[in-house]
Amino acid sequence: MVQKRFQPSGLVLEPEEPYIDYFYDTPGSAPGTLNIESGATLPTIVLIDYNHTHATRIQIDTPEAITPYLDSQSVSWVDVQGLGSEDILQRLGNVFHLHPLVLEDVVNVPQRPKIEDYEDQLVIVTRMVMLREGTQGFASEQVSLVLGKYYLLTVQEEPEYDCFNPVRQRIRANKGSIRGEGADYLAYALLDALIDGFFPVLEVYGERIEALEDEVVANPTRQTLEKIHQIRRELLSLRRSIWPQRDAINTLIRDSSDLISRDVQIYLRDCYDHVVQLLDMVETYRELASSLMDVYLSSVSNKMNEVMKTLTVISTIFIPLTFVAGVYGMNFNPEASPFNMPELNWYWGYPAAWAVMVAIAAGLIYFFWRRGWFSNFSTLQKKD
Amino acid sequence: MVQKRFQPSGLVLEPEEPYIDYFYDTPGSAPGTLNIESGATLPTIVLIDYNHTHATRIQIDTPEAITPYLDSQSVSWVDVQGLGSEDILQRLGNVFHLHPLVLEDVVNVPQRPKIEDYEDQLVIVTRMVMLREGTQGFASEQVSLVLGKYYLLTVQEEPEYDCFNPVRQRIRANKGSIRGEGADYLAYALLDALIDGFFPVLEVYGERIEALEDEVVANPTRQTLEKIHQIRRELLSLRRSIWPQRDAINTLIRDSSDLISRDVQIYLRDCYDHVVQLLDMVETYRELASSLMDVYLSSVSNKMNEVMKTLTVISTIFIPLTFVAGVYGMNFNPEASPFNMPELNWYWGYPAAWAVMVAIAAGLIYFFWRRGWFSNFSTLQKKD
Amino acid sequence: MVQKRFQPSGLVLEPEEPYIDYFYDTPGSAPGTLNIESGATLPTIVLIDYNHTHATRIQIDTPEAITPYLDSQSVSWVDVQGLGSEDILQRLGNVFHLHPLVLEDVVNVPQRPKIEDYEDQLVIVTRMVMLREGTQGFASEQVSLVLGKYYLLTVQEEPEYDCFNPVRQRIRANKGSIRGEGADYLAYALLDALIDGFFPVLEVYGERIEALEDEVVANPTRQTLEKIHQIRRELLSLRRSIWPQRDAINTLIRDSSDLISRDVQIYLRDCYDHVVQLLDMVETYRELASSLMDVYLSSVSNKMNEVMKTLTVISTIFIPLTFVAGVYGMNFNPEASPFNMPELNWYWGYPAAWAVMVAIAAGLIYFFWRRGWFSNFSTLQKKD
Amino acid sequence: MVQKRFQPSGLVLEPEEPYIDYFYDTPGSAPGTLNIESGATLPTIVLIDYNHTHATRIQIDTPEAITPYLDSQSVSWVDVQGLGSEDILQRLGNVFHLHPLVLEDVVNVPQRPKIEDYEDQLVIVTRMVMLREGTQGFASEQVSLVLGKYYLLTVQEEPEYDCFNPVRQRIRANKGSIRGEGADYLAYALLDALIDGFFPVLEVYGERIEALEDEVVANPTRQTLEKIHQIRRELLSLRRSIWPQRDAINTLIRDSSDLISRDVQIYLRDCYDHVVQLLDMVETYRELASSLMDVYLSSVSNKMNEVMKTLTVISTIFIPLTFVAGVYGMNFNPEASPFNMPELNWYWGYPAAWAVMVAIAAGLIYFFWRRGWFSNFSTLQKKD
Amino acid sequence: MVQKRFQPSGLVLEPEEPYIDYFYDTPGSAPGTLNIESGATLPTIVLIDYNHTHATRIQIDTPEAITPYLDSQSVSWVDVQGLGSEDILQRLGNVFHLHPLVLEDVVNVPQRPKIEDYEDQLVIVTRMVMLREGTQGFASEQVSLVLGKYYLLTVQEEPEYDCFNPVRQRIRANKGSIRGEGADYLAYALLDALIDGFFPVLEVYGERIEALEDEVVANPTRQTLEKIHQIRRELLSLRRSIWPQRDAINTLIRDSSDLISRDVQIYLRDCYDHVVQLLDMVETYRELASSLMDVYLSSVSNKMNEVMKTLTVISTIFIPLTFVAGVYGMNFNPEASPFNMPELNWYWGYPAAWAVMVAIAAGLIYFFWRRGWFSNFSTLQKKD
Repeated sequence: MVQKRFQPSGLVLEPEEPYIDYFYDTPGSAPGTLNIESGATLPTIVLIDYNHTHATRIQIDTPEAITPYLDSQSVSWVDVQGLGSEDILQRLGNVFHLHPLVLEDVVNVPQRPKIEDYEDQLVIVTRMVMLREGTQGFASEQVSLVLGKYYLLTVQEEPEYDCFNPVRQRIRANKGSIRGEGADYLAYALLDALIDGFFPVLEVYGERIEALEDEVVANPTRQTLEKIHQIRRELLSLRRSIWPQRDAINTLIRDSSDLISRDVQIYLRDCYDHVVQLLDMVETYRELASSLMDVYLSSVSNKMNEVMKTLTVISTIFIPLTFVAGVYGMNFNPEASPFNMPELNWYWGYPAAWAVMVAIAAGLIYFFWRRGWFSNFSTLQKKD
Repeated sequence: MVQKRFQPSGLVLEPEEPYIDYFYDTPGSAPGTLNIESGATLPTIVLIDYNHTHATRIQIDTPEAITPYLDSQSVSWVDVQGLGSEDILQRLGNVFHLHPLVLEDVVNVPQRPKIEDYEDQLVIVTRMVMLREGTQGFASEQVSLVLGKYYLLTVQEEPEYDCFNPVRQRIRANKGSIRGEGADYLAYALLDALIDGFFPVLEVYGERIEALEDEVVANPTRQTLEKIHQIRRELLSLRRSIWPQRDAINTLIRDSSDLISRDVQIYLRDCYDHVVQLLDMVETYRELASSLMDVYLSSVSNKMNEVMKTLTVISTIFIPLTFVAGVYGMNFNPEASPFNMPELNWYWGYPAAWAVMVAIAAGLIYFFWRRGWFSNFSTLQKKD
Repeated sequence: MVQKRFQPSGLVLEPEEPYIDYFYDTPGSAPGTLNIESGATLPTIVLIDYNHTHATRIQIDTPEAITPYLDSQSVSWVDVQGLGSEDILQRLGNVFHLHPLVLEDVVNVPQRPKIEDYEDQLVIVTRMVMLREGTQGFASEQVSLVLGKYYLLTVQEEPEYDCFNPVRQRIRANKGSIRGEGADYLAYALLDALIDGFFPVLEVYGERIEALEDEVVANPTRQTLEKIHQIRRELLSLRRSIWPQRDAINTLIRDSSDLISRDVQIYLRDCYDHVVQLLDMVETYRELASSLMDVYLSSVSNKMNEVMKTLTVISTIFIPLTFVAGVYGMNFNPEASPFNMPELNWYWGYPAAWAVMVAIAAGLIYFFWRRGWFSNFSTLQKKD
Repeated sequence: MVQKRFQPSGLVLEPEEPYIDYFYDTPGSAPGTLNIESGATLPTIVLIDYNHTHATRIQIDTPEAITPYLDSQSVSWVDVQGLGSEDILQRLGNVFHLHPLVLEDVVNVPQRPKIEDYEDQLVIVTRMVMLREGTQGFASEQVSLVLGKYYLLTVQEEPEYDCFNPVRQRIRANKGSIRGEGADYLAYALLDALIDGFFPVLEVYGERIEALEDEVVANPTRQTLEKIHQIRRELLSLRRSIWPQRDAINTLIRDSSDLISRDVQIYLRDCYDHVVQLLDMVETYRELASSLMDVYLSSVSNKMNEVMKTLTVISTIFIPLTFVAGVYGMNFNPEASPFNMPELNWYWGYPAAWAVMVAIAAGLIYFFWRRGWFSNFSTLQKKD
Repeated sequence: MVQKRFQPSGLVLEPEEPYIDYFYDTPGSAPGTLNIESGATLPTIVLIDYNHTHATRIQIDTPEAITPYLDSQSVSWVDVQGLGSEDILQRLGNVFHLHPLVLEDVVNVPQRPKIEDYEDQLVIVTRMVMLREGTQGFASEQVSLVLGKYYLLTVQEEPEYDCFNPVRQRIRANKGSIRGEGADYLAYALLDALIDGFFPVLEVYGERIEALEDEVVANPTRQTLEKIHQIRRELLSLRRSIWPQRDAINTLIRDSSDLISRDVQIYLRDCYDHVVQLLDMVETYRELASSLMDVYLSSVSNKMNEVMKTLTVISTIFIPLTFVAGVYGMNFNPEASPFNMPELNWYWGYPAAWAVMVAIAAGLIYFFWRRGWFSNFSTLQKKD
């Protein structure tokens, strides 16, 4: 089986590297074919089982060990990290009775975020981004949620980056109302954490655009141009991650499903607001980046204008003077006729030539000053 | 708890400072967590209780003191200004039975404007802008309205700027029909005041664009470019404030709610018209600013064209003349052969050289005049 | 009461002056507050009462005198021109039982065109434009129509410009079917006249764009740029006047109202077609103006290219020649060594120098001719 | 009656002439007023009456002669060509019981394409375009179809261009199923012919754009710019003709009408597909033309870059050389001091000066070669 | 019968050749007219009949031989490759009872992708693209699917390129569930293969854009410009192929048809996701290409700026120096007066002239250095 992706989705991204393409099957392959990347992390499975009285954390070795927990009335959160074993993933699929297409979407990353309703299961495919501390880079991976009546299965690509820890602590510390609520509330809490994780990443773009706004007017270089294009490319990519999440959450709110209670739907409205805010920000940044490209072009034209003015002022002042000097450098023989360069023998000849040249220069300088062409000389020197 | 915002929302804005980002929680934090900024103003609570016979204004110290007024048939308007105490805000939440998410939206500013229906309460999150007298700057803060059957709770970020005074005076002076109407009419009156407050702010943009229209053609500088980009950025921001208000008010008009009477819905249609007018204006300004950017670029090109013409006219006239002068400055020895620069000893040599030069200059000037390249010399001098 | 508008709406517009802003109340003022501009024309009221047998025209002095006509089975058209008296307008409002918000919309001009349904009254706020004969300027004012069962109230800002005369003549002359129809047909006839009035105005824009199309390629100046921006601004403004009319008439056609008969709805479909045609034309003109801006920028670049070619051709031909002349103007002493400028004493020295210079010039001219740089010399001279 | 149109709609268009404006009435004129252009062709009326057994073609002189055919079970196709007689058109209107607004739309050309349902009649206003053989120009006129139960009335502006001949031959030759079907099938057949007539016209635009794509990169001139703008203008116009036809046919398919049988609706889906294909093509051409404008601007900048490089290379090589020559042309008196230009009397003075000059030139040429500025010299010469 | 297409649709495309136009009939021709291109491949018909127990592959010579298989409960897949015989295609049409319009769409290629519901048959017209190994070119042809209760008819233009082989192997090898499912599942499997075939083709565009991103900043040439325009043109074309497929599959999912089982609809949702992912990618590439055009223009301006700076620096340094040299090349007679060029006889005259020239040059160099104009000299030299 041949797979081709531009970039593995579970990677840490430097700001220069966008992720822009989806996973696709070899044309004609049977549905449900799993694609295990060589070198992918082996899956580790952790089960957190809780209700308002207890909360247990169990490390799972064989997927079949999960089965007894699924029917119990307590909430069972099965968290899988790593996609490196087809065997374990297939057995997980059997334990949770996953449709082959669901397993395919979970394993063959990256997929477009979406929500699918399989009557007794809601499958949510979404993306996590996490700012790496101390850098402008961020990690990005696919997270899939399968919500059942009493359980929630989450599958992540990599164990390294994970924004679910605060939720785990709320369960352990019995903080807020999470222990008294069902699996649907847990799904909401995780979605909320995923979505809030986009904000710090977007903020970095805000800062980068702000830095560019100064650069583009003061000192537009070739690197500025590359940076603007780069930001446009990355925002396109972020927008593609966020748009379908908005649709997915909207579907969750509007369509009544037995798996989502009325109370949790109110909380999901809050999630929806946050996604809309994210889109608002992305669109604003996109329009700003687009406007920056216009500013860049105008700014380069401005610079060229200043260069041209300098050339023009200096050339047009000295070229006529050089002509005058050239005239009196001619070798016509004053002795051959009285009309041949009599100026050369005038008493005031040389001073008169200087006077003519000074007058020409003064006239041109006055002409340029009237046009305001000297303004840029002063504004430019203020720069440093 | 870590919070990050680009800019506190309850600030006075100079026209150069846009507010572009929303408040967001630390990813994974429990819903309902309040974020009290250190240094925020302590809340002051004022209750105005009125019906067609009486109108009282009471300063409230403990939120619980409000409870008795909420059930009475008179309208109770509780106005809270300042978000500086978590304790008082939580107690207010209890008195009004606010959903934790509502309290979060009210306190964790700024949020995207929206409307939410909690059956016995309508929650409207919106923004207030106020022109500061004598300046082009304006103040902006979030205002939240919670409408119940007999009461209206309003929460503002800061006491300093407030556009509700005319409404308070209408209540006190029993002007218009406000004293005879319910809490829903009060909510309409406040929304109307908030929305009308956007008009003078937008007008300032109209004036700034008009000023730029002259500047961009007459004298486009680097500052002009910055100003255009600045206006585009701020209009984007204003649009983001106004769009969701349109949706919110539209929801109020279309969806029947027990809390809004039929009569007040008719008044809200008027509010809706005003929001649509605001959007019309913002979109028009945005298109004008966009067109200005095109004009700027063309205008800079135009200027460069004039500079180039000046350089070309003067250079191309004098360069051939200088060549002629150079020729007769050569030192070929006329005595070595009759072909060596015999002109130098001609009787009319020097006048003939001048004649050649004048003829060349005249030919070139005629050529440029035919092309109309002298037009810009005259138009430019008319400028001052 | 403070009001602020960029421009009184009942003014005669020169093509250079757009009307771009709506009337707005002082924030917080009570609904229904009327704004009488000082200096506005005093209202004159004319009643035309007609059915298929008779048609009377009565000058009304006190609004209350209208009351008896309102209930009669004949159609009563009350035409008010001028908004200069609060007293008369308030009394008119009482006679017609107008909602305070309706009276506000009618008096506080300009408003966004709209339609409102008050069960026993349909209120249509729209705009009239009229070409002033012999000029490119046009007059623009707000016209409000209040349609009842047996009456139609129309309110205009100014008596000077009025496009209803042909309808009055059709009533007087009993031309067409107007005398046999109800008030709804009269409303249609007036709306139709208002909408058809936009066509000649738009035609002027078509002519202005056509004139610019020639100018922008042949001779793009700074004025051309201003004109293009101006047209874009005015078309934005016209579009804002026409769009809401389209929505309003569409509402009239689709929603069944007791006040509009089925037959008149068929006529209104015709009105709707005309508004859509207007929008079609405005959008086409907008796209053409936008394309013109692109053409302008390209055209300026083209011109600069021609200027640069001229400079380059002349400079690069003469600069090497001047260098050659300069070389033989050097004063190295031929007597100091046989290598010092022996050319100066050669028999064919001077002719050889000329030969070298002619060869260089011919080579460069051939080089430029191969590149086709001389093409613009000929094309430019064809211009006059 | 005053009418104003930019261009009579029944004209043969050269590719340079767009048709962009609709017919409009004098504002305030009564509905149903017909506008007969002086000089318009007198109408000729031809009736083709057929069923599966017979097919007759009758030249009609008085419209009333049509009446007996209208009720017969055979299909009667009345084809009117020419709009030059108000009398005949009014009588036709009476014979077919046309609503005055229908007659107005049919006669006062051009109108926006549309469909209107008058219960016992379906009125379709559409446009015909026909490529003129051997040219790039095409003819354009309005065609109106009035479909009744057993008849179809078609009205064309001019007899000269007509794309219905193949349909007439199918009727005469009893080819395909047309003779066995009703009037609705005939309407479909004519609509299909009209729509298919747009394809060859659009193809011409495809060819013109393809030609421009080469021209714009190889040799962008002022004419190229005009051609691109021209194409954009004409495509706007074509799009305005086609869009409303799509809506009209979509209405025919979706709304059930007694006049259109289920079988013919299936055929109309095919028509609809073709209109959508036309729109697809128009939009593609529009985007290509828009991209061409960008290419043009970049291409002109590219050309200017080459011109500038030529100027810079030649100027910056010779200007320093000329300076060196100028230095040794100075007349300082070597006898006045040993520091005054001793070079002039050196044995190797002149060769050394040449050596300096050659070194400077070589250095600069190396510098420019490293920057790759000579590349354009070779690429340009490959051109011819 | 005259047909005209820009390009036969069953061709192998080099990346430079877009396919942009649809097939169209001669205007006025009868519906159902088939267009057999001379030189088209003769059709070969292969029948694959299978159920969970058996799978047979039969080469069919006469279309009528298919009839017995169509009613059997086993799935019959009739695959036709080549459109070169009207006779065979007509007989196929009879065997499958195809509507004349269906046969027309299948044979007269290319058509816009679409789905049509003929009650007992679903007709899907779609496109296949296949990357040719080892090249950037791809093959494109129309594939039509006619789905009946127990059969599936597929018609391809050419036998050469075919992406159905993996599906044939899954049937033969009884791999996956395909042998146990109906004709609808087979249709899904083929559609899935067709859609997945677009991914590798799009990937090539991603690579081409990535290559251009480097080229456009580092070394923008005329070829770069052509390539960007080329990519925009081809992406427009690909988008036109994919958009209607999205609509078609969406129709399949939403509308319940007896021919598509509930289970297969779930699989089609997966197909739909893939089409949406394709559109996502196309739109992203289109926006990137559009941004590249902006970058190109800015990059060319940048380059010109560097050229201008070089010219300006060198010209403005040497022109004043040349003037100074020119002054002392004048021939005023020092003996005629003490004011006539006494410098020539000064003891330090020549060194002083040099000092003045060096001072001027140093001043100008400092001036340019302060402006940062020398930066580009170093950055440019780093290039190689």
